[in-house]
Amino acid sequence: MVRVTVWGENVHEREEPAVRAIYPDGMHSAIAAGLSQSLGERVRVRTATLEQHEHGLTEDVLDDTDVLTWWGHGAHDQVSDEVVARVHQAVLSGMGLLVLHSGHYSKIFKTLLGTPCDLRWRNAGERELVWTVDPSHPIAAGVPNPIVIDAQEMYGEPFAIPRPDELIFISSFAGGEVFRGGCTWVRGAGRIFYFSPGDQEYPVYHHPDVQRVLANAVLWAAPRLRSAPAGSPESPVGWWT
Amino acid sequence: MVRVTVWGENVHEREEPAVRAIYPDGMHSAIAAGLSQSLGERVRVRTATLEQHEHGLTEDVLDDTDVLTWWGHGAHDQVSDEVVARVHQAVLSGMGLLVLHSGHYSKIFKTLLGTPCDLRWRNAGERELVWTVDPSHPIAAGVPNPIVIDAQEMYGEPFAIPRPDELIFISSFAGGEVFRGGCTWVRGAGRIFYFSPGDQEYPVYHHPDVQRVLANAVLWAAPRLRSAPAGSPESPVGWWT
Amino acid sequence: MVRVTVWGENVHEREEPAVRAIYPDGMHSAIAAGLSQSLGERVRVRTATLEQHEHGLTEDVLDDTDVLTWWGHGAHDQVSDEVVARVHQAVLSGMGLLVLHSGHYSKIFKTLLGTPCDLRWRNAGERELVWTVDPSHPIAAGVPNPIVIDAQEMYGEPFAIPRPDELIFISSFAGGEVFRGGCTWVRGAGRIFYFSPGDQEYPVYHHPDVQRVLANAVLWAAPRLRSAPAGSPESPVGWWT
Amino acid sequence: MVRVTVWGENVHEREEPAVRAIYPDGMHSAIAAGLSQSLGERVRVRTATLEQHEHGLTEDVLDDTDVLTWWGHGAHDQVSDEVVARVHQAVLSGMGLLVLHSGHYSKIFKTLLGTPCDLRWRNAGERELVWTVDPSHPIAAGVPNPIVIDAQEMYGEPFAIPRPDELIFISSFAGGEVFRGGCTWVRGAGRIFYFSPGDQEYPVYHHPDVQRVLANAVLWAAPRLRSAPAGSPESPVGWWT
Repeated sequence: MVRVTVWGENVHEREEPAVRAIYPDGMHSAIAAGLSQSLGERVRVRTATLEQHEHGLTEDVLDDTDVLTWWGHGAHDQVSDEVVARVHQAVLSGMGLLVLHSGHYSKIFKTLLGTPCDLRWRNAGERELVWTVDPSHPIAAGVPNPIVIDAQEMYGEPFAIPRPDELIFISSFAGGEVFRGGCTWVRGAGRIFYFSPGDQEYPVYHHPDVQRVLANAVLWAAPRLRSAPAGSPESPVGWWT
Repeated sequence: MVRVTVWGENVHEREEPAVRAIYPDGMHSAIAAGLSQSLGERVRVRTATLEQHEHGLTEDVLDDTDVLTWWGHGAHDQVSDEVVARVHQAVLSGMGLLVLHSGHYSKIFKTLLGTPCDLRWRNAGERELVWTVDPSHPIAAGVPNPIVIDAQEMYGEPFAIPRPDELIFISSFAGGEVFRGGCTWVRGAGRIFYFSPGDQEYPVYHHPDVQRVLANAVLWAAPRLRSAPAGSPESPVGWWT
Repeated sequence: MVRVTVWGENVHEREEPAVRAIYPDGMHSAIAAGLSQSLGERVRVRTATLEQHEHGLTEDVLDDTDVLTWWGHGAHDQVSDEVVARVHQAVLSGMGLLVLHSGHYSKIFKTLLGTPCDLRWRNAGERELVWTVDPSHPIAAGVPNPIVIDAQEMYGEPFAIPRPDELIFISSFAGGEVFRGGCTWVRGAGRIFYFSPGDQEYPVYHHPDVQRVLANAVLWAAPRLRSAPAGSPESPVGWWT
Repeated sequence: MVRVTVWGENVHEREEPAVRAIYPDGMHSAIAAGLSQSLGERVRVRTATLEQHEHGLTEDVLDDTDVLTWWGHGAHDQVSDEVVARVHQAVLSGMGLLVLHSGHYSKIFKTLLGTPCDLRWRNAGERELVWTVDPSHPIAAGVPNPIVIDAQEMYGEPFAIPRPDELIFISSFAGGEVFRGGCTWVRGAGRIFYFSPGDQEYPVYHHPDVQRVLANAVLWAAPRLRSAPAGSPESPVGWWT
């Protein structure tokens, strides 16, 4: 059983009626519900949000989390550096991390990747097509090619990230732009998946194909190994004999 | 000075008046002229075609070639296995190779990559946008983002290639498809660049931005080192002391 | 349950008493026994050898194989091109492939990688240390760092392979050489793992840590997806709507 | 002409007579002299050190630097976060960076890579062999295989770094360990090369082969493009037409 924590900024949903109409219980609740519905007893899902004590991401919670999903947008700088360092450490030790949409600008994503993660954008409710370029990857299992999302914010290249270890999905938009919207990296023992669909103004997390991608990604990112990073140990000669 | 050999199948141009109208001296001549014009005295360009003796790719020609460009389409199976093996060996020894458009199905490309190189396609004269995803790569230098090609054949994912070492360009098409249209690999000492624009029915090789990409790629693929592969040599103990 | 076929050239064992003393039933039998013992009911293991009809790798056998392991040495050129093409197709369609030791020079490995796969070697019964560089990779699970192999043939860099998708193990030898002895690649839907320990003159496949690596690799390479490659299909406009 | 700034911590050299005996003018001066001697008029080399105002790395200096080399050890935490952020920004904008030996634990290296960069070590004056695994890479041009360094500190795997874009050198040590001692990454427009030989207690930077590697790396890392990162710009529909 994979223990999932769905983290949500939970600001738009409380402040903007249009967003609340789409996600009455918050985006995090919709994401969590999609995972629970897709994966049933294979997961145990809980949520955590910015306004909670330590943003809901205490040591105890992270110790009890196999995969963390991260959605944030307008309040990235309200996330405390201490919690970011804690999440960073958890990923290096083997916790999986799914970074969603505008989470590209989160502190944790930029810390893990070392780059600014800039991109082009336009919010015009455009049709997004999510094409699979790596059909045998487990994250793409059972996903139509392409996924058709009727209305989304456009994210376009160049996307200022390090070369992904794996490129799984590339999106196109009605306006003609393209975006590497499904990428993986390994950092330490942790597996990271970035997935770009998911603006707060559109019901993307209710889309069954998007839910399927996230469910696949949770299973993929679940840790094979949890390890405490060791620092740089001094080794005596021939210790391995 | 980089010694370039532009190889062309030269079948469509001779058999189809519509193609000949676009490329009266053959596609290879247009590609060669673009390189000469872009690079001037930095290159010495010649051409070779299928119908020539040994397809114009004798040992002497390859020994005198730093970068080979390859365009073929309907006559891939008329290229002799012996010449393919010779080109393969030259690439491994350090010769650069630019594979163009329908060259994705050439024997030499499939031999180097080990995969079928299948893709989706549609010839409907669609607008292609070629987006740069790696703006600091030398092959993208001075190239607008995107390159706009008014009419082209669509090539779409999934493209059955090994993971590229570098992904430089991604195309979108008016119909919504995407394609990893600018990729590099290293095989042995040789650098390989695949670039997808270039169907024979459209004047793509007269497009100044496409010419710029090919000129950049020639400079990038020029060998740093020409080496004779060594087989697997037996090494005495401590030979390096 | 993973269906494994262990392929062995089975020449040294029959012709050389010293090898037969180490592997009385052939190297393939020892490899198969190690997998069965390590994985129990998670696998069903059979063997196939060069001298059998179609080298024991008929269409029916490959259709019934999830992961194929390949050991060959002196008789690579006796493997028929037809069988190589069949195995190639099976890998592209999703069958996992483990290439062992001197299998680096097999037709199937060179066909999949597109490079000569040359290396340096010396058969002096040297101590080999197999170091894990990617400790969270499932193939390294439960493996000591390093694995100590008291006597082995030396394989040394440069190893003429394409850049691996993942580098898991690097070996050092008493003589001072190093070798990328544990590498993965994906080709089509198939996962490939190369593992260098395993010369016929030493009891490497009886080593419990080597057996553990091979067992891990079988589970890793088992196909997520079996797919028939599709050729390059023509796509009508808007087919995805 | 490539403008190089050689940065040195310059602490050991001032405090430890044994180190000063090897590097009487500081390690940075020896590294700078090696580059000037190897590259002549192709470079203009200056040095900067920790104790200088802003560690000698003011905005003006970085604006006038194409490639920065970084050696530090005991005083990593004395480097100000402001200077680290400035160097980070310069790398993303295209400045090349060579990180040397114990610089693996520098703030700038960890910031760019996002991982702890831990390793194993032992200071026993062991022979290090630096093997080239990518002989056609320009950083390996003219370098013997292996480079023999008579006495060095041992650095061993696992090295807690992201998967390198390119792996050029692997070292072995007399004690049997291995280390990915020559790796490259691209971050933004900047090229990064890590090279592990170079402990302060041994005259490694006087070694002609090490000097050759560093000279090659300076030429390789020199920026193709200097660009100001753009933030995430909003794009109107059809802006590219």
